[in-house]
Amino acid sequence: MASLKRIGILTGGGDCPGLNAVIRAVAKAALGGGLEVLGIEDGYLGLIENRLRVLENKDVSGILTVGGTILGASNKANPADYAVPTGDGKWVKRDVRDQVVKHCNAARLDALVVIGGDGTMGGAVDLIARGLNIIGVPKTIDNDLWATDITFGHHTAVTTAADALDKVHTTASSHHRVMVVELMGRYAGWIALHAGLASGADVILIPEIPFRLEHIAGKCLKRHKVGKGFTIVAAAEGAVPVGGKQFVDRVDPTSPDPIRLGGVGRYVAEEVEKTTGLESRSIVLGHIQRGGSPTPYDRILATQFGYHAFRLLVAGQFGRMVVQRGGRIDSVPIAEVAGKVRTVPTDHLLIEAARALGTSFGDRPA
Amino acid sequence: MASLKRIGILTGGGDCPGLNAVIRAVAKAALGGGLEVLGIEDGYLGLIENRLRVLENKDVSGILTVGGTILGASNKANPADYAVPTGDGKWVKRDVRDQVVKHCNAARLDALVVIGGDGTMGGAVDLIARGLNIIGVPKTIDNDLWATDITFGHHTAVTTAADALDKVHTTASSHHRVMVVELMGRYAGWIALHAGLASGADVILIPEIPFRLEHIAGKCLKRHKVGKGFTIVAAAEGAVPVGGKQFVDRVDPTSPDPIRLGGVGRYVAEEVEKTTGLESRSIVLGHIQRGGSPTPYDRILATQFGYHAFRLLVAGQFGRMVVQRGGRIDSVPIAEVAGKVRTVPTDHLLIEAARALGTSFGDRPA
Amino acid sequence: MASLKRIGILTGGGDCPGLNAVIRAVAKAALGGGLEVLGIEDGYLGLIENRLRVLENKDVSGILTVGGTILGASNKANPADYAVPTGDGKWVKRDVRDQVVKHCNAARLDALVVIGGDGTMGGAVDLIARGLNIIGVPKTIDNDLWATDITFGHHTAVTTAADALDKVHTTASSHHRVMVVELMGRYAGWIALHAGLASGADVILIPEIPFRLEHIAGKCLKRHKVGKGFTIVAAAEGAVPVGGKQFVDRVDPTSPDPIRLGGVGRYVAEEVEKTTGLESRSIVLGHIQRGGSPTPYDRILATQFGYHAFRLLVAGQFGRMVVQRGGRIDSVPIAEVAGKVRTVPTDHLLIEAARALGTSFGDRPA
Amino acid sequence: MASLKRIGILTGGGDCPGLNAVIRAVAKAALGGGLEVLGIEDGYLGLIENRLRVLENKDVSGILTVGGTILGASNKANPADYAVPTGDGKWVKRDVRDQVVKHCNAARLDALVVIGGDGTMGGAVDLIARGLNIIGVPKTIDNDLWATDITFGHHTAVTTAADALDKVHTTASSHHRVMVVELMGRYAGWIALHAGLASGADVILIPEIPFRLEHIAGKCLKRHKVGKGFTIVAAAEGAVPVGGKQFVDRVDPTSPDPIRLGGVGRYVAEEVEKTTGLESRSIVLGHIQRGGSPTPYDRILATQFGYHAFRLLVAGQFGRMVVQRGGRIDSVPIAEVAGKVRTVPTDHLLIEAARALGTSFGDRPA
Repeated sequence: MASLKRIGILTGGGDCPGLNAVIRAVAKAALGGGLEVLGIEDGYLGLIENRLRVLENKDVSGILTVGGTILGASNKANPADYAVPTGDGKWVKRDVRDQVVKHCNAARLDALVVIGGDGTMGGAVDLIARGLNIIGVPKTIDNDLWATDITFGHHTAVTTAADALDKVHTTASSHHRVMVVELMGRYAGWIALHAGLASGADVILIPEIPFRLEHIAGKCLKRHKVGKGFTIVAAAEGAVPVGGKQFVDRVDPTSPDPIRLGGVGRYVAEEVEKTTGLESRSIVLGHIQRGGSPTPYDRILATQFGYHAFRLLVAGQFGRMVVQRGGRIDSVPIAEVAGKVRTVPTDHLLIEAARALGTSFGDRPA
Repeated sequence: MASLKRIGILTGGGDCPGLNAVIRAVAKAALGGGLEVLGIEDGYLGLIENRLRVLENKDVSGILTVGGTILGASNKANPADYAVPTGDGKWVKRDVRDQVVKHCNAARLDALVVIGGDGTMGGAVDLIARGLNIIGVPKTIDNDLWATDITFGHHTAVTTAADALDKVHTTASSHHRVMVVELMGRYAGWIALHAGLASGADVILIPEIPFRLEHIAGKCLKRHKVGKGFTIVAAAEGAVPVGGKQFVDRVDPTSPDPIRLGGVGRYVAEEVEKTTGLESRSIVLGHIQRGGSPTPYDRILATQFGYHAFRLLVAGQFGRMVVQRGGRIDSVPIAEVAGKVRTVPTDHLLIEAARALGTSFGDRPA
Repeated sequence: MASLKRIGILTGGGDCPGLNAVIRAVAKAALGGGLEVLGIEDGYLGLIENRLRVLENKDVSGILTVGGTILGASNKANPADYAVPTGDGKWVKRDVRDQVVKHCNAARLDALVVIGGDGTMGGAVDLIARGLNIIGVPKTIDNDLWATDITFGHHTAVTTAADALDKVHTTASSHHRVMVVELMGRYAGWIALHAGLASGADVILIPEIPFRLEHIAGKCLKRHKVGKGFTIVAAAEGAVPVGGKQFVDRVDPTSPDPIRLGGVGRYVAEEVEKTTGLESRSIVLGHIQRGGSPTPYDRILATQFGYHAFRLLVAGQFGRMVVQRGGRIDSVPIAEVAGKVRTVPTDHLLIEAARALGTSFGDRPA
Repeated sequence: MASLKRIGILTGGGDCPGLNAVIRAVAKAALGGGLEVLGIEDGYLGLIENRLRVLENKDVSGILTVGGTILGASNKANPADYAVPTGDGKWVKRDVRDQVVKHCNAARLDALVVIGGDGTMGGAVDLIARGLNIIGVPKTIDNDLWATDITFGHHTAVTTAADALDKVHTTASSHHRVMVVELMGRYAGWIALHAGLASGADVILIPEIPFRLEHIAGKCLKRHKVGKGFTIVAAAEGAVPVGGKQFVDRVDPTSPDPIRLGGVGRYVAEEVEKTTGLESRSIVLGHIQRGGSPTPYDRILATQFGYHAFRLLVAGQFGRMVVQRGGRIDSVPIAEVAGKVRTVPTDHLLIEAARALGTSFGDRPA
């Protein structure tokens, strides 16, 4: 740690419960180790605009249980492709990576801890190539980052999603309805799989297993016939019908403006009602999955990740991202991670278990 | 209680946390008082189709904390206007009120406890006119039933809504966003007012106070200027712009199919983003406000309401609905209640308090 | 408001969820009304030791949902009887009320908002007599302050208590046990009554209804005989046997040191097990009833109380305490309140309801 | 699966959230696979007393989210050493293992799924030796079973414990107190370590690291001096002073009856207050750590464990217990497990992380 005197921390990308816990762990460990710590505001934007502030113990005290990030975040600031105003009301994309490096050097940062998802890690690769010492900490509520079995924030999102599924359960049961809850997960179905399993959803739809409406409808009717007059469907937003496309950006082609027609949740509810005559409703859980106080599990995981980032700093193992694999904290080169998505293997033990317990994934007759 | 030997209980209308607590209280008190109790399935539908079942103590044991209704409910079965199939694939509306009375008499029901909202109470008025002994228990998560200050289920809905507002708070704050959360409340803004106040929303939109987009946008910009780069908006689904209409059934006129364009939440978020340039998002909380385990407050209130219904039964005070007014349990004639909505008075103390603390209702410059 | 320029706020007594919400409401309304606001640290102690600090909007932002009090509190500082060190290692009690008045005048406080319980209101009476302008806001999780139907914090305590009762329910049921949960409430049984009712406790013990062990044991055995092999007892810490004394300070007379033998919860569990042979356990919930984020109900109530305190300030109605009675916010002279306890009337409708539903209060044969 | 026709399930030992989820998974998978399923009541007691009942899909429907066990449990029935009444008011210990085997054979059970902790697995070893086909599923909220990294129920217990620590945090902070929360964990400190880390406890005491009161007091004073006037201590019930004994069964030697003096939590609070003069309080969380609805994490883990038990049944891999190791579901011989405790390694990464972040384990100067 001889030469390491001052580090910076930034949080990039969408919101995720546990960000503050990572910031706290990195900062407390670093301050305890005699380092100076700068917090960079709003992710890479803070490096572009040179907005940094000193972090002391009192700044990171009491934030362990608080959602969001005290540093702010931005999911729009890509240093390689940054929109700057031209002055005449227009915008032009510029490569400001050298400016970022310049600001890091001006602030005399010996190393940077970068907490973020796939996009943030991609940006880190560029900066590493320009000579910055960077440690990555993976962040995604979707749990779809390559190389790590689990990321903080996912468990909190699953808890929020399972709570919503539990809540609609009583309504569905009392009113004999099909209830479709659309959950986050554009490319990977981890949230829908975990939350669906945790609340005993009857149907789970994930991007990895294309569904057929007839099988979903069949499951609903089968339950109806045996006297269970309701069905709970947990659907990842990225779920797709066999041979079809994602519904996320579905727009009405007849309309002059791009009108969003709703996602897969509404589609499934409407079609199931049309086909079966069973009353069906859908809800889109949306951003509340990204918010709130992290669960104890995520606080511990985020703390571990943050502390391990500090250990990598001290060991001078730059260019690496913290991961958990096989139940152990470890690290991998950031360059290996960027651009890859960890989807749910269709032969995953949890899918096998869910099928054995009667859950439909919409791909087979009920 | 000389002549009272057997009573029936039914739950009508939409789902509401606390229904089971009322059923339990009525049934336990009645069974303890030596009465026989029949549970009627699916609201008035069970009286039309003659589906009743005996309730004993074991049937209502353990349901106090469970959402939904063990009896089932239907919000489609109006005995005065009931859809029956004609046999050739069509449906025709029939008046089946006499059939309902016949089934009640056949089951030797001396009285009926009817738990429901405005529609259910309207149906009860008809049956009272036909000679049935009925006690009403008001039910609405919206808290907009006339004659009672509070209804069970509302507090649970407010808790769910406030929890969602709390959750988006950290995201809004970290990402400098305007977040609009659309809550239930088509005619009355009680949920948005209470939940908005409970979570410190910056803007609260309710049907009773028409809003101007410019004032909402102005509030967002004002907060942005003083360095609070985010704004939380709690919007009742029935909120309307000055001189405008409700958004609940907004459809695209250019489309052949009726395409729902989204409610007031999406409208406000999109327009605010357009006007101010501030990143804005909306979520629609939807049915999860109707579900889940009732809060302790609602369990107690529902138990009180159910027990008071029993007291009215025993006292032979038929045709009355249980209410809470001025902090006391009381009753009013059901006939006085039907068809009236209890909206938020625009000079309500809570609105005055919220304004004094800086909350905007969208009707005045920020 | 002509002459009102600067106010002080203090919080006294034990912890209570919602204190911060009151501070926020008073401060925001006052600052919005052009007043200066000083926060007094640690209740009356801050007035004795002259520890005050300026409160601005940013200081009370984000505290609505946070438990505790940002001002600190002390339940040891009574200005009429304040312990000061004599210098030789001893302490002597002094009357420092004039010193308090002097510090208020030196800080040019035109009025004081005093948030606290019975003791804090008693202190306020003294200071009013010395010419200070004081508005009181009642605070007690026990809900036993005279003149107000409800106090903020109580509902949160009830929610925590009901949650604990719900949690032991499954264990009691699975393991066929008698589980006694000892709750707060030394003089009044509101928490045990409300939480017990909310979670369907089989036995509720409160100070207002002395119990007989034989009736509790009888209830447990009766449930055992009908196949419900478990019993849940919600016991206020102040519950007493007929003709007996409170257990709160029960000590072992044979021991040289005062050894606390445990409260009524342990006593009941041990005696029931001895008498009936049924396995019995007790837990003491303790201080967690005073902590945590206030429920939405308490945040709203605390905000209303705080805002009404501001209205009384502006109206110059000094010497009064905010109350809620008959469902409305109102106020009473502080002098009328001090020294009185609002216990549960033994003919309270909730007790009648609980009995009708089969709950035992330990005073009658099961 | 040719010869496997009928299986039995039992749950032994203390309560644990997730038991029902395991029962449901085993039963649903087995019924789906064409097997008959018998539920054995109250653990081994049901095999001794021949109390078994048929389980069908409807019996295990809706129990996934419910705490406790629908089968009942007993932690007193050890077939090798079972207390039977002699008829003259006395009890004698008998070996009834052959009787258990006889009842299993009479019920034509081809295999048994035994869900329990160390004691239950010990009992299973005996029955395996007598020829029974047994699959074990580990259960302990303490997470101290050998051979598996994690057990269901632990996470729920940690969540309850962390919630209590969070709740006392605001009180401690507002009232400048030392608050000691005594948590479960007689032999292993996993709950205190995890919950303490998750809520940022300042001191964590576990059985594996004997403490010195002077170091705890030193930590409290150090925090006091830097202006943080409070300290949160998370103490496992089995924590011990250096060279001392556990406090669990501490009794007053001067008393004729064995009077429990309270555990380590009270001891630490009393001694710290005596030594430092800082106001100190303790609470014992107790049985609520064993109750309540399992968290989504535990529902998933319990479902996986239950499903894997079914897979072992089908594969005829009897005599094995399900485990999770290195992030994967696996199994080990039951015989290897019994009698071993998995304590917290004192060089565990979490302990290292906690120390680096400023947490004291009471073993070193602050």
